[in-house]
Amino acid sequence: MKLKTSSLLIAGALLGAAVMPAQANNEAMLDLLKVLRDQGTITADNYDLLASAAAADKEKTEAATAEVKAEVKSVTKDMPKITTKGKIKITSADGNWSFQPIGRVMWDAVHTDADNGVSSDDVKGTELRRARLGFQGSIYNWGYKFEADFAGGDASIKDAYVSYGTKFGDTKLGLKLGQSHIPFGLNTKISSKYMTFMDRPMFADNSVSPARASGAVVSLAAKDYRWSLAAGLQNGAFDGDNDTYEVNGSTFAVRGSFLPYMEDKSHLLQIGAAFLTQGGGDSFKFQPDLVSHDDKYKPVSTGTIAANDFDGAQAFTVDALAVFGSFHAMAEYLDHTIEQDSGSDIDTTAFAVEAGYFLTGESLKWKKGYTSGIKPKSKMGAWQVAARFETIEIDPGSSSEDEFDKFTVGLNYYPTQNTRLMLNYDQVTDLTVNGSSVNDEPSALKFRAQAYW
Amino acid sequence: MKLKTSSLLIAGALLGAAVMPAQANNEAMLDLLKVLRDQGTITADNYDLLASAAAADKEKTEAATAEVKAEVKSVTKDMPKITTKGKIKITSADGNWSFQPIGRVMWDAVHTDADNGVSSDDVKGTELRRARLGFQGSIYNWGYKFEADFAGGDASIKDAYVSYGTKFGDTKLGLKLGQSHIPFGLNTKISSKYMTFMDRPMFADNSVSPARASGAVVSLAAKDYRWSLAAGLQNGAFDGDNDTYEVNGSTFAVRGSFLPYMEDKSHLLQIGAAFLTQGGGDSFKFQPDLVSHDDKYKPVSTGTIAANDFDGAQAFTVDALAVFGSFHAMAEYLDHTIEQDSGSDIDTTAFAVEAGYFLTGESLKWKKGYTSGIKPKSKMGAWQVAARFETIEIDPGSSSEDEFDKFTVGLNYYPTQNTRLMLNYDQVTDLTVNGSSVNDEPSALKFRAQAYW
Amino acid sequence: MKLKTSSLLIAGALLGAAVMPAQANNEAMLDLLKVLRDQGTITADNYDLLASAAAADKEKTEAATAEVKAEVKSVTKDMPKITTKGKIKITSADGNWSFQPIGRVMWDAVHTDADNGVSSDDVKGTELRRARLGFQGSIYNWGYKFEADFAGGDASIKDAYVSYGTKFGDTKLGLKLGQSHIPFGLNTKISSKYMTFMDRPMFADNSVSPARASGAVVSLAAKDYRWSLAAGLQNGAFDGDNDTYEVNGSTFAVRGSFLPYMEDKSHLLQIGAAFLTQGGGDSFKFQPDLVSHDDKYKPVSTGTIAANDFDGAQAFTVDALAVFGSFHAMAEYLDHTIEQDSGSDIDTTAFAVEAGYFLTGESLKWKKGYTSGIKPKSKMGAWQVAARFETIEIDPGSSSEDEFDKFTVGLNYYPTQNTRLMLNYDQVTDLTVNGSSVNDEPSALKFRAQAYW
Repeated sequence: MKLKTSSLLIAGALLGAAVMPAQANNEAMLDLLKVLRDQGTITADNYDLLASAAAADKEKTEAATAEVKAEVKSVTKDMPKITTKGKIKITSADGNWSFQPIGRVMWDAVHTDADNGVSSDDVKGTELRRARLGFQGSIYNWGYKFEADFAGGDASIKDAYVSYGTKFGDTKLGLKLGQSHIPFGLNTKISSKYMTFMDRPMFADNSVSPARASGAVVSLAAKDYRWSLAAGLQNGAFDGDNDTYEVNGSTFAVRGSFLPYMEDKSHLLQIGAAFLTQGGGDSFKFQPDLVSHDDKYKPVSTGTIAANDFDGAQAFTVDALAVFGSFHAMAEYLDHTIEQDSGSDIDTTAFAVEAGYFLTGESLKWKKGYTSGIKPKSKMGAWQVAARFETIEIDPGSSSEDEFDKFTVGLNYYPTQNTRLMLNYDQVTDLTVNGSSVNDEPSALKFRAQAYW
Repeated sequence: MKLKTSSLLIAGALLGAAVMPAQANNEAMLDLLKVLRDQGTITADNYDLLASAAAADKEKTEAATAEVKAEVKSVTKDMPKITTKGKIKITSADGNWSFQPIGRVMWDAVHTDADNGVSSDDVKGTELRRARLGFQGSIYNWGYKFEADFAGGDASIKDAYVSYGTKFGDTKLGLKLGQSHIPFGLNTKISSKYMTFMDRPMFADNSVSPARASGAVVSLAAKDYRWSLAAGLQNGAFDGDNDTYEVNGSTFAVRGSFLPYMEDKSHLLQIGAAFLTQGGGDSFKFQPDLVSHDDKYKPVSTGTIAANDFDGAQAFTVDALAVFGSFHAMAEYLDHTIEQDSGSDIDTTAFAVEAGYFLTGESLKWKKGYTSGIKPKSKMGAWQVAARFETIEIDPGSSSEDEFDKFTVGLNYYPTQNTRLMLNYDQVTDLTVNGSSVNDEPSALKFRAQAYW
Repeated sequence: MKLKTSSLLIAGALLGAAVMPAQANNEAMLDLLKVLRDQGTITADNYDLLASAAAADKEKTEAATAEVKAEVKSVTKDMPKITTKGKIKITSADGNWSFQPIGRVMWDAVHTDADNGVSSDDVKGTELRRARLGFQGSIYNWGYKFEADFAGGDASIKDAYVSYGTKFGDTKLGLKLGQSHIPFGLNTKISSKYMTFMDRPMFADNSVSPARASGAVVSLAAKDYRWSLAAGLQNGAFDGDNDTYEVNGSTFAVRGSFLPYMEDKSHLLQIGAAFLTQGGGDSFKFQPDLVSHDDKYKPVSTGTIAANDFDGAQAFTVDALAVFGSFHAMAEYLDHTIEQDSGSDIDTTAFAVEAGYFLTGESLKWKKGYTSGIKPKSKMGAWQVAARFETIEIDPGSSSEDEFDKFTVGLNYYPTQNTRLMLNYDQVTDLTVNGSSVNDEPSALKFRAQAYW
């Protein structure tokens, strides 16, 4: 007698210990029936009936399996993907819709010593530094984001826009309509969630290096952000009523960055530059904090330039960011020139350079041209030490310039992804007011506990 | 020999190519054993043992299938249903609990020309028009909703209520306790997410056609909303402290609607009417915008009616909404009468009529007596053109009436469900102040980008 | 012939009606083949081929089952657990990350009669009493919470902290950094979601029994909260700017509780005590409401103690909570002493005792030392009746003390878990101002609809 070729092959393969694809599972019965029929043990009629019964058995087994599979599929086919680690994100099964609740809470304890003999200029206490709630989402190529900060007791609008994004080959194109980041500066644009220190360099202030404004921003970037370019035409930041109707001048800004060197995401060098022109017609004042967000002693200042005397301003920045394993360095230089209707230009120059090192082996996370949140390697968390030097000089075109130099050292502990405890010490080392050196050396000891989601 | 009847039937059915229900899958073996026993090929003892082994095989197969099924069930039985398209909604497996984060962001760029020779009356700039966050949910027959608007820099409470809903046969009964929509008017009640134009008709204002108030609202409706009826006893809108303790008069309102014609949801005609009586004792003023939400030039006004002179007001509206395929039309007429303690009644009459057409084949979405969000038919989005005429006349019982007529044309682009870009042009064509025609013809060009979730 | 032992055993077991573990499911075929070979019905060669085919069949069946199981596993392995009843909580598959949107809405209708002959002291109307939105989450041992109340039109920050929790054997250790509850008092700490009455006892006020402050709180507790101990060093509550920079004195508080008797969670007695010391240097005033949160008539008062005269304060509370089936009782005594630079101490003593009974068989829910939300036993909801007596005496060290006694009766209806309707009647029975009995007996009728998530 002859067995069916396929089952012989299967049998042979099996003997060779190969793994079989699933399903048909009563070949042995059919083969046996053939053998018994061929040698006359069973009649041809019985063979037919038995073979039919065997086929029915097989059908039934397959149907049972298919039924379970269908059940799994029906239960899971519309099931969204839900990210629970690092962020909360619900994405539709087809990937075209996503939704993400966002927020952050930062609680600071601060002790500053103004060192100017005026005890009421010292600041001591705690503060809810940032407390944000918001939502963002995407719908096919479109998206939206709305986040407000409630730390000040009211709703301070941060990002609030409708966006569009697409790709042309390896180039990404983006558009934001609403309030979003002005494409200017590096320190200003790095999220407070990811800053190395508790406060940005004091020049990264809304006056000379503004953060957000209402308008349109277009961006282009390589898929891997080896280069990026963004330009914004924005009509000032929202005022208390969250409109810009009283703003006189528009802001045009453009920023580009590229990576001359990137071995991998933890070995790279990025260079950036930006240019900004601010319209005039609104009053202007730049009076940076020295050692803390809540300084009362702020002797360095442009003074207030009245709306009718403020003709506008130009500014540019150049910046660099380098990551080499656990080490990183970052530098930014700013030049901001105020044009007055009467009186000479007021020129602010500033720079900050920082370096940090993870004692526990992590690397600063570079993402899309900026820094992002790290994930500790160990369950014990990650530790980072960092130092920064910064200087600001405000030159009103005479010998009465204001200037200060400051050192900051910081220790960061990341218990987990998304949480961080920070300890900073800020020390002004040189202070010049109206062209004369001042003996005050303000300092601050600052602690932060933060979490974001 | 004789095969078991059931397996013969099964075999026969199989030969007839019928599909079998799942499970028992070694009938062929049992049949073969019977044949072999009956013709003496195997002994009766062996038959018994082999038949037992076959039964055991079957049990085991069924147990394996049942195990997988149980696993699927255990993993999925408490799995909530999560809606990710059009809205984010998490519903418990039994359907009795649901939760939904809600919100919207609308960003406007506006350029108005007051045309009155006063350049400071022109408005130019951008605005975060609406920025809302909230949650709503249901627990069996009960529910809650809380949504606040943060666009003004503070928390302006919108809906904030606890609700109850049930059905009697085909009739739905609802109750809302808290702040919710006053059952009055059509334009006022249509959500800003779904309005055809960027601004409501100028009479759909909190003074003569108020939107929300704090109190109790009862509603009845057919299951399919062929008819609906709602009545509210409300104690004014929340003031700055979100209470109504200083409000003197209550508001009673009732609104009904019915559909004399409905072929399907895109071929229908709805007629509505409402009545409202406002208590007096609070100061009153109606001074509508002309061309934009942020007008500074607003010559049409009732003037301020002092609290001790305002005895209350009565108002009624009649409205119609028609959808015929891609075309829709909507009209509303309002009559509002202020009763003064001294001086004659002040009568405001207003109407607005609009028409719109989807160039891309969609239909205005009618839902529960109002309009709702459309879903573009094409991946390229949906386009709609629309026009509106409106007029408001304020008649103080003398010849010194105020009046204006306005045309609005609009172009709406819906890139996706839940997103929309809008372009509106508003033009006042006739303006009468204190009984005299005024030559000013204010106009506005307005753009909006919006998303909701 | 001899059948394989294992299949004989299986067959025997089967005859004994035992249930088999899954998988191997063609033993009968192998046994039959052996029988047929042994008695010469089939050849040894055919036996080998057929046995191989049978083994292949088995492999295939098992592979099919394994494939489905793998599919189930792959689909579900990263699927978070989502709680939809009682709260909305998304927990990662490994349990290490969780996220929870939180909030509550409470709408009140209030009618108070000041009974002092000054009609403007009566309060009538509705109020959005609480309207909160927030998020909380956990990341391994760390966590965060941020919740703000928007009922007042701005963002009043409630909990805003980063936390850490761990266990040592059966002892739980917790740390909160940020704004959180001061460990002081019982009535103050019970969440407004779970209070028996609409208003707390009038002494549970931010002055003498403060709720939240910014700082650090450490807590220890038994795993089952049979005992707990918490201590906080806090720098006052956030002011309007959500910082404590202007606060002069720190607050140190410690609270402990233990359960001398606990048969189960609905038969227990808890005793608690707390001590608090407030720093001076800020102005101080305690002027409790009498019958309602929005009283205008508040004759009982310490008066304002100027910042330079307020040297600080000490306070202590003792409290008890008992649950016996559907019945509960709760009592708290407070003693608060203000130290003045000039003038004598001002001593406030107060107590409140309440009792409640569920008519529908539920028990007050005790959870972690406080009360929590109940789940009605019936689909018709739960009903609770309750009564409270409270008294406050402010003794300025002379005969001019202020004092009032008040009764409150309440009826609570819980339609479902997480929702509640409340009706309260408050009646002052005795009022003494400046040492003289006053004839006024203010009263209030109050209704609340609330939901939380």
